Amino acid sequence: MARYKLTIEYDGRGFVGWQRQKNGPSVQAAIETALLPIAGGPVTVHGAGRTDAGVHALAQVAHIDLVKERPADEVRDAINFHLKPANVAVLSAARVGEDFHARFSATERSYRYRILNRRPPPALSRHRAWHLGVPLDHEAMDEAARHLVGHHDFTTFRSTKCQATSPIRTLDELAVRRQGEEILIEARSRSFLHNQVRSMVGSLKLVGEGKWRAEDLVPVLAARDRRRCGPVAPPDGLYLVGVGYNAGA
Amino acid sequence: MARYKLTIEYDGRGFVGWQRQKNGPSVQAAIETALLPIAGGPVTVHGAGRTDAGVHALAQVAHIDLVKERPADEVRDAINFHLKPANVAVLSAARVGEDFHARFSATERSYRYRILNRRPPPALSRHRAWHLGVPLDHEAMDEAARHLVGHHDFTTFRSTKCQATSPIRTLDELAVRRQGEEILIEARSRSFLHNQVRSMVGSLKLVGEGKWRAEDLVPVLAARDRRRCGPVAPPDGLYLVGVGYNAGA
Repeated sequence: MARYKLTIEYDGRGFVGWQRQKNGPSVQAAIETALLPIAGGPVTVHGAGRTDAGVHALAQVAHIDLVKERPADEVRDAINFHLKPANVAVLSAARVGEDFHARFSATERSYRYRILNRRPPPALSRHRAWHLGVPLDHEAMDEAARHLVGHHDFTTFRSTKCQATSPIRTLDELAVRRQGEEILIEARSRSFLHNQVRSMVGSLKLVGEGKWRAEDLVPVLAARDRRRCGPVAPPDGLYLVGVGYNAGA
Repeated sequence: MARYKLTIEYDGRGFVGWQRQKNGPSVQAAIETALLPIAGGPVTVHGAGRTDAGVHALAQVAHIDLVKERPADEVRDAINFHLKPANVAVLSAARVGEDFHARFSATERSYRYRILNRRPPPALSRHRAWHLGVPLDHEAMDEAARHLVGHHDFTTFRSTKCQATSPIRTLDELAVRRQGEEILIEARSRSFLHNQVRSMVGSLKLVGEGKWRAEDLVPVLAARDRRRCGPVAPPDGLYLVGVGYNAGA
């Protein structure tokens, strides 16, 4: 048995999400289907985490086990060959030990959220960013974001469908900056709750519009009440940027 | 009669090109259709230049004449409202004098060509870049590009269908640089011949692959022979970046 770590890019549009589901095409199923002729039988693709329908990835990580060992670059190329023309590509494959687990070995997840903040609608970034036509105060958003960084109970910013046993997470980074017409929000944590990034972005947007003050995030977080969260941001602007592992993994 | 200068972004995929044609949807026709309810009748959209099927624009320029004067921002918003959900957006509208002509007043056109130069196929930049899996020598490409800059007869790099009366153009810039996984080629000239940028990029690619030397561009250009051109690059990677006008326009 040979284990491989895969780094995967995908365009979330057209998928029901990362995870295999009965109601439509998933990224996981696309890769598992591509693996069938390579492995000569079913192979499970274990992802570092699920992404929702419409959410993109610059570098999702997964692992697979193949009965027969093959050079890692050959595995990458073979999967990409059979994936065509899906909006999924394996960026790299690396041989890893059996103690590596894409999900359980992960020590960090990074996400980016893109807001296209200009009056005209998007043409080239349709389905790739959240379009907000009213000028947002990105400095106030960044100030608000700092109130969420740290070790907290994130019940307010967690989907009611979230299956995690604990709502407590340590948010290592949540930073907002403007880059031309876009506002970029970077989020980093060991792990995130379901819809956490999109929930936080939805609340930061209210601060950007001046409907909330930056310091309003403090009681909203402390309330541990889902009803206090701003409307959840759409998936279009969300990108899984990377998954971190301890050295050696 | 009130004349407006429009700056337009579009995703070229799904269009037969800028120009109205019988065989499919064009960017020009999409905007003209959106203008019908605004102007209360047919309006011609005069573009600064044609782009081929699949070619994108960050900032194409066009002008229109409206019988009734309206605030420019209102014109922009009204067109965008009626364009939805096309992959076209009017970035800005500005009131200009009747001596302004999008095509004839233009003094400069800028294009960018994106090559995704990595082994794995594109997932997020499908139809937005030319994927070339073999590592290209971008420095040799840049050296080759310099041989094309200047006042030349560009017959070699011109489509046989090109309708321009003269094949002579002054190429002000042709520069190649690497940015992460991408190779970006910037081209600037008062005007370009049909397929000129994609023809030049197709030949630069041969230099990048080591099939041609940089200095091979010299006799290829001097030959003024279309058959000496490398295979024309696909439209997916080409972006009209901007159109320049003299101050006041």
